[in-house]
Amino acid sequence: MSGAAPGGVLTFGEGLMKLALPPAQRLEELGNLRAECAGSELNVAAALRTLGRPAAWVSGLPGGPLGDWVRAHVRALDVQDLSLERPGRLGTFYLEDHHPPRPSRAVYDREGTAFQALTAADLNGSWLGGRSALHVSGISLALGPGPRALALALVGAARERGAVVSFDVNHRRLLLPDHAAADTYGPAAQRADLTFVAERDAELFGGAEGLRALNPQAQIIVTRGARGSETHLPGGEVITQDAFPTAGPGRVGRGDAFAGGYLHAYLDGGSPREALRFAAACAALKTTLPGDQLRASEAELRAVQAGSETDEPRR
Amino acid sequence: MSGAAPGGVLTFGEGLMKLALPPAQRLEELGNLRAECAGSELNVAAALRTLGRPAAWVSGLPGGPLGDWVRAHVRALDVQDLSLERPGRLGTFYLEDHHPPRPSRAVYDREGTAFQALTAADLNGSWLGGRSALHVSGISLALGPGPRALALALVGAARERGAVVSFDVNHRRLLLPDHAAADTYGPAAQRADLTFVAERDAELFGGAEGLRALNPQAQIIVTRGARGSETHLPGGEVITQDAFPTAGPGRVGRGDAFAGGYLHAYLDGGSPREALRFAAACAALKTTLPGDQLRASEAELRAVQAGSETDEPRR
Amino acid sequence: MSGAAPGGVLTFGEGLMKLALPPAQRLEELGNLRAECAGSELNVAAALRTLGRPAAWVSGLPGGPLGDWVRAHVRALDVQDLSLERPGRLGTFYLEDHHPPRPSRAVYDREGTAFQALTAADLNGSWLGGRSALHVSGISLALGPGPRALALALVGAARERGAVVSFDVNHRRLLLPDHAAADTYGPAAQRADLTFVAERDAELFGGAEGLRALNPQAQIIVTRGARGSETHLPGGEVITQDAFPTAGPGRVGRGDAFAGGYLHAYLDGGSPREALRFAAACAALKTTLPGDQLRASEAELRAVQAGSETDEPRR
Amino acid sequence: MSGAAPGGVLTFGEGLMKLALPPAQRLEELGNLRAECAGSELNVAAALRTLGRPAAWVSGLPGGPLGDWVRAHVRALDVQDLSLERPGRLGTFYLEDHHPPRPSRAVYDREGTAFQALTAADLNGSWLGGRSALHVSGISLALGPGPRALALALVGAARERGAVVSFDVNHRRLLLPDHAAADTYGPAAQRADLTFVAERDAELFGGAEGLRALNPQAQIIVTRGARGSETHLPGGEVITQDAFPTAGPGRVGRGDAFAGGYLHAYLDGGSPREALRFAAACAALKTTLPGDQLRASEAELRAVQAGSETDEPRR
Amino acid sequence: MSGAAPGGVLTFGEGLMKLALPPAQRLEELGNLRAECAGSELNVAAALRTLGRPAAWVSGLPGGPLGDWVRAHVRALDVQDLSLERPGRLGTFYLEDHHPPRPSRAVYDREGTAFQALTAADLNGSWLGGRSALHVSGISLALGPGPRALALALVGAARERGAVVSFDVNHRRLLLPDHAAADTYGPAAQRADLTFVAERDAELFGGAEGLRALNPQAQIIVTRGARGSETHLPGGEVITQDAFPTAGPGRVGRGDAFAGGYLHAYLDGGSPREALRFAAACAALKTTLPGDQLRASEAELRAVQAGSETDEPRR
Amino acid sequence: MSGAAPGGVLTFGEGLMKLALPPAQRLEELGNLRAECAGSELNVAAALRTLGRPAAWVSGLPGGPLGDWVRAHVRALDVQDLSLERPGRLGTFYLEDHHPPRPSRAVYDREGTAFQALTAADLNGSWLGGRSALHVSGISLALGPGPRALALALVGAARERGAVVSFDVNHRRLLLPDHAAADTYGPAAQRADLTFVAERDAELFGGAEGLRALNPQAQIIVTRGARGSETHLPGGEVITQDAFPTAGPGRVGRGDAFAGGYLHAYLDGGSPREALRFAAACAALKTTLPGDQLRASEAELRAVQAGSETDEPRR
Repeated sequence: MSGAAPGGVLTFGEGLMKLALPPAQRLEELGNLRAECAGSELNVAAALRTLGRPAAWVSGLPGGPLGDWVRAHVRALDVQDLSLERPGRLGTFYLEDHHPPRPSRAVYDREGTAFQALTAADLNGSWLGGRSALHVSGISLALGPGPRALALALVGAARERGAVVSFDVNHRRLLLPDHAAADTYGPAAQRADLTFVAERDAELFGGAEGLRALNPQAQIIVTRGARGSETHLPGGEVITQDAFPTAGPGRVGRGDAFAGGYLHAYLDGGSPREALRFAAACAALKTTLPGDQLRASEAELRAVQAGSETDEPRR
Repeated sequence: MSGAAPGGVLTFGEGLMKLALPPAQRLEELGNLRAECAGSELNVAAALRTLGRPAAWVSGLPGGPLGDWVRAHVRALDVQDLSLERPGRLGTFYLEDHHPPRPSRAVYDREGTAFQALTAADLNGSWLGGRSALHVSGISLALGPGPRALALALVGAARERGAVVSFDVNHRRLLLPDHAAADTYGPAAQRADLTFVAERDAELFGGAEGLRALNPQAQIIVTRGARGSETHLPGGEVITQDAFPTAGPGRVGRGDAFAGGYLHAYLDGGSPREALRFAAACAALKTTLPGDQLRASEAELRAVQAGSETDEPRR
Repeated sequence: MSGAAPGGVLTFGEGLMKLALPPAQRLEELGNLRAECAGSELNVAAALRTLGRPAAWVSGLPGGPLGDWVRAHVRALDVQDLSLERPGRLGTFYLEDHHPPRPSRAVYDREGTAFQALTAADLNGSWLGGRSALHVSGISLALGPGPRALALALVGAARERGAVVSFDVNHRRLLLPDHAAADTYGPAAQRADLTFVAERDAELFGGAEGLRALNPQAQIIVTRGARGSETHLPGGEVITQDAFPTAGPGRVGRGDAFAGGYLHAYLDGGSPREALRFAAACAALKTTLPGDQLRASEAELRAVQAGSETDEPRR
Repeated sequence: MSGAAPGGVLTFGEGLMKLALPPAQRLEELGNLRAECAGSELNVAAALRTLGRPAAWVSGLPGGPLGDWVRAHVRALDVQDLSLERPGRLGTFYLEDHHPPRPSRAVYDREGTAFQALTAADLNGSWLGGRSALHVSGISLALGPGPRALALALVGAARERGAVVSFDVNHRRLLLPDHAAADTYGPAAQRADLTFVAERDAELFGGAEGLRALNPQAQIIVTRGARGSETHLPGGEVITQDAFPTAGPGRVGRGDAFAGGYLHAYLDGGSPREALRFAAACAALKTTLPGDQLRASEAELRAVQAGSETDEPRR
Repeated sequence: MSGAAPGGVLTFGEGLMKLALPPAQRLEELGNLRAECAGSELNVAAALRTLGRPAAWVSGLPGGPLGDWVRAHVRALDVQDLSLERPGRLGTFYLEDHHPPRPSRAVYDREGTAFQALTAADLNGSWLGGRSALHVSGISLALGPGPRALALALVGAARERGAVVSFDVNHRRLLLPDHAAADTYGPAAQRADLTFVAERDAELFGGAEGLRALNPQAQIIVTRGARGSETHLPGGEVITQDAFPTAGPGRVGRGDAFAGGYLHAYLDGGSPREALRFAAACAALKTTLPGDQLRASEAELRAVQAGSETDEPRR
Repeated sequence: MSGAAPGGVLTFGEGLMKLALPPAQRLEELGNLRAECAGSELNVAAALRTLGRPAAWVSGLPGGPLGDWVRAHVRALDVQDLSLERPGRLGTFYLEDHHPPRPSRAVYDREGTAFQALTAADLNGSWLGGRSALHVSGISLALGPGPRALALALVGAARERGAVVSFDVNHRRLLLPDHAAADTYGPAAQRADLTFVAERDAELFGGAEGLRALNPQAQIIVTRGARGSETHLPGGEVITQDAFPTAGPGRVGRGDAFAGGYLHAYLDGGSPREALRFAAACAALKTTLPGDQLRASEAELRAVQAGSETDEPRR
């Protein structure tokens, strides 16, 4: 993959080591862990790539074996690695995966990371060369002044070049207090062509209407978990989509698969209705897989949308 | 933990090694096993302790490494260990965990255990000193004359001291035939302040009415699995509580978590309705966890009762 | 087991190594695999054996350790091994086990197997001596001219001796194109006393009516997955049976358990209604178990049919 | 296998469940266990069988799934199962497997087993019919009066029929105090054709000379671990054999493989020197394997004796 | 355990999460990890405790589930927990465990930990009440000014009270450059009664002579890995001890077991020769065990010193 | 990596799925398997790549998920994938890994593979463009006429372009009888600049002298396992090198690491003595790692050659 091929997308965000506990286990009984390469914007890049679209990822990583570990994962995902080596840690988080009514839980350990050492001065003019779109998320805006400045600089550069700007609010309550959300994420929401937001996070802006007030032109895509999703169009029309029934170990990352799928269909010229339906199918297939990244072909996604799969093995 | 702190509870019962098979596997294909420390009354003590209440456990254990293994578990649970070393085996049981319609199945191997060597002469006057309550179960009454005599002596001593007596019928068909149930468990049921009984076991006494006939003053708490639970009050009032929806690997021990939760709320001065609701939340959270013992904070239990948890990870 | 005891059944088919991936994992992330001994007709023999009926299995296997591995499994199942050693490979297949809407998937690697080296000349007159029935499936008919000829020769020999002929269409789309199905499987369907067919495969013959046209005397048993099953009797009567609710890791092999159960009840003199209900219970219990073979006693099957099992462990 | 084929051997002893801890782990940290089917005399039968000789095993087993589990293992080993169902437990033992200088350790839990319910009255005249040899060990003599009486009755019956009597002292210090060893094991040692004894156990009889005093005709085979083995012939000649260098997880059961190998070579007409060398090779190959039973072909044993194996994989 | 019982020892140091990779695996192939509770001074406390001596541990830990995880481990070890809750992370490190000639490797991630927030102002006068000794290591001196000040304050307080001061240099090249070693560790080495130092680390002080120059009264114990150990006595005498042959997974922590064993024997009044020999046996038994902490009884240590263990399981 | 960068090497050979059994387990007890991507020439390419040299691999692979699985591994190794999609299977082999004296054992299942469908007509002139060397092995010559013709065509093309030709005899007795070895491998040995051969395989040519007779100019490198290696120079001089002491799970692939290391040093202008020593260090480090491919830096290899590593973890 040559990286800057036509239709390609650049994503920007932190890479992390997810330390996943065995299902239903609590940190207090910690013993075996599974290390997985994580990061919302890397997941979006991986979703775009599995769908056949060139994708590249800008990040900040430490040197040494832990940074090499992330880089090998990015290569295995066939995503172009544009990460910069910076001093600092590799951020980690522990993830407890529980059955309801016990909530699953992330415990972050992401202070002092290499990613946080990035600044707007790191902006490289070539990153966006030939790309069709940029994808950033609110996580980078919440992680500190350096990443925030670089994210917003990228948004500005993308707009200048006429690239599509995709923004996922992705509010993390353990990183940023609710009261700071609107101010922190607003500058990106104002300039995005596509804004993804979970229903509960939209309330921090006063709902979809609040986001519309910030940005009259964006498609505002509100995800509602098992209750489906909806796209608010600039003219006020709201398109709704049910969630496809699904199950499996892959709840983490389904929002990223959704965003990646929507962006992919949008760049392919799909209508909002088509993009929303395609994104819902991506989220459904992501849920069936372990790990944080979607793997699926367009044919598999068509089958999900057609509802043609049975419970019988293919043999 | 100082053991005899105000509000503390003493429980009495056998400690066992549960040899759990992998999910869905049968004993005939035995290979890998998971050893877990089990025992209904120890589970009740652990539930009380995780809720912040001092708890102690009287038992009989063999010397040597298997007894030490149990003792280390009790210490890890932060339950005060009042067990006595006695000659005999450590009882074990194999547990097959199946999907319906294949029933899960315990295969007991608990003949000749150290616990069965206990007698009423082992009663130690200091055990109940400063405790608010005693909890025993029908298992100890069914395990042989020695444990039965000691259990009833403890009940008598508790009543003398004015401590609350909590009794869980906990009938084990593989230990005692149904026809012997009423005679065996009756003497404890007659003297309990709280009697817990599964709906199917209550029938051995002629239902809740039969238990009421034995004991006019007790709160009789009937558990009905997924169909909820109910407390029969002395005056005839019946309070009902739905089960909270739940899932997970921890079906074994949920009855103990229920009893521990009810007793905890009762000792805190909660009304029967509050205690029943709290107990139901304890059972729901227990179900989400592997192992036999509840781990949960009061905050987590409040969230279950408030129904405020979503399927989204906390992050 | 003396093999040719009264009531015994002979089955004929290929033995395979199933290389099962961990749940929800894709071949592209291949790492750990679980080797299990598989083969539809061996599964039927194992189902008959666990129900107490003598069963023998004719097959073709390579020499060396992989053939020995299969033979040890057959011995462990207490099925009489009548396999012949032939040059060639042991066939394998990879099985991805997914959550819906992602379909589970078999990837066959069964070219050039020892089984395919069998021919009609291998027919051994003693195999059917004293047997009450023969069971074959469409897989053997689809695997090549040699196995096909031997399967049909066995059917002919069974009919000559008056043994019941049981035939499971068991169409494998990855082995045979749909358009060749009717021609390939027809000769066996014409001569069977019992024909098992999945609803979607029946369509390749024009539905149950099409199969009836081929064979006026057979009981035609159509399986419909979670939607139940039905037996089409020669006189036109159709008996229906709901599927028993079930769950678990054992979807593969439930059709074989169904066929084995039906054949067992039929040979015991059960009515079509009884056989259909018994078969449905076998499929339900198979689903609860890992591996490809049913293990269940008649008592367990009666309990499933009576609906007497609860979610509580037996203890 | 027809069981009483020419050259066949009958062994008698208890079957047990070995609960093996992960390497280097102590019981105090118990968690995962591996259940394996164990029993010294069953191991000897398995060694004879893997070498191509018919072998049968007499034992006492409980009914139910744990007894079935043992019986399935015996069938998988292709050893004829002559066990009797008796009331009582299935004996178990925990095995810690340590690196030196920490000694490996068995913790027995074998009180009240079904095997101990056997008595001399259980002797079945047909068991020895057509057999060439009987093998018993001191474990059965130490386990209680019933098994002891039956073992000695078998020895008597074997001598009457002219079958070879093979006896392995196999002293278990955790079952019998040293001071009782000579009296307990003496009656079998007096009547054996082959007596196997570990060097440290021989001292309980006053060394090989003490055993010779009991029995002027036996071949007395003294095993000395890594320091080799020796056969004391009736005439006073002592043949010595170095141990073959070996490594691996299978230290438990190597003595049984040694005894089985010696007996096999002896029954084949091998000289004491040949039998000793063959037995040493069996012990070496057993050590390389997990589990308690030898698996090896005569060709593999010849290669070990020839020293022709290199460290290179065969490919 | 009452904590301040006679003969008790206080240790001070950081608690960490060791993230251990499977044997022979590199971080670049990271996947499964095993979390273990680590910390040199906690290991020393655990060694003292397993030998029957009361032990307490002062540390700084974060709140929340990761701190709770450490505290549960300390309780399970039966070591008195005197840790303080402080803001900051729980330090972690990754450990690759390799076969030679590939060196095993730690990758530290211990910036910004709660332990580093400790200062001399945290000194609690009651900690040393009734203790016989204090143990600290150079790790705490290297971790930052706060821990360094508190460690030295503890050393001062111990000397005032007449408690034995035990100091293990334990130089970590990944935490402190070699050139800073003498200055950093010197103040503790000057005031210690026992100074433990690896041979290669002693060179940073100019060898044992250099350490002697700092402190004329200390026993200076130099460890030399497989080449044994030696105690340099104040009078110039040097006592040497061979390492006991050993093997197993527990190389990490053997130095702590050595120090704990030496200190235990010293406090029991053992001569330097006895203490050195006892310490060497502790290190040998530690090596046989997984995890970082010694578990062994005095009887087991006597057996190692007597060389009485064989390769045979105890049974 | 741009593939045809200066100093780059092209390798040609089959890619396989190695199905590795757990240590010490036999195929007859098959259950868990570990799938690893294997192939001698791919291993050589990976060794060159980990040392910093561009490397590309030509092969024939099936389409579908098993081919994709290989391709993902090649990408993860950062080796340029020049494989062609061809009809046929992905070859597999089972590998038993035993302790001596039981030999490790490969069981091949590599009939009808996609690689065998390659022919000389597949030669692509661009493959060697800009490469410094070609590496092939005798395995490709033994696998059939098509791969043999393509391998020899590549050798011819390399010689024409002046690229170094490296040839590893790598005789597989399970693929080719010994008597056919000289004829099969001779044409490549005649034209190689470097010929690698195991001592036992050299005998098939009449020793190193026999290989010298075929090719007067080659460096003939004879590997002798733990007994070291030697390079026979054209002038008759023989340089010898001891093996570096090593241990670990990675015996398979050490020959490929050796060849890759030698070729790397040779292309860097190293003397035969330097190349031999470097190759021996590569083999030693490969042995410490699981999987088939070397991972090591030049610095790690220098440390092995310097003997500077101790048994202590780096921390």
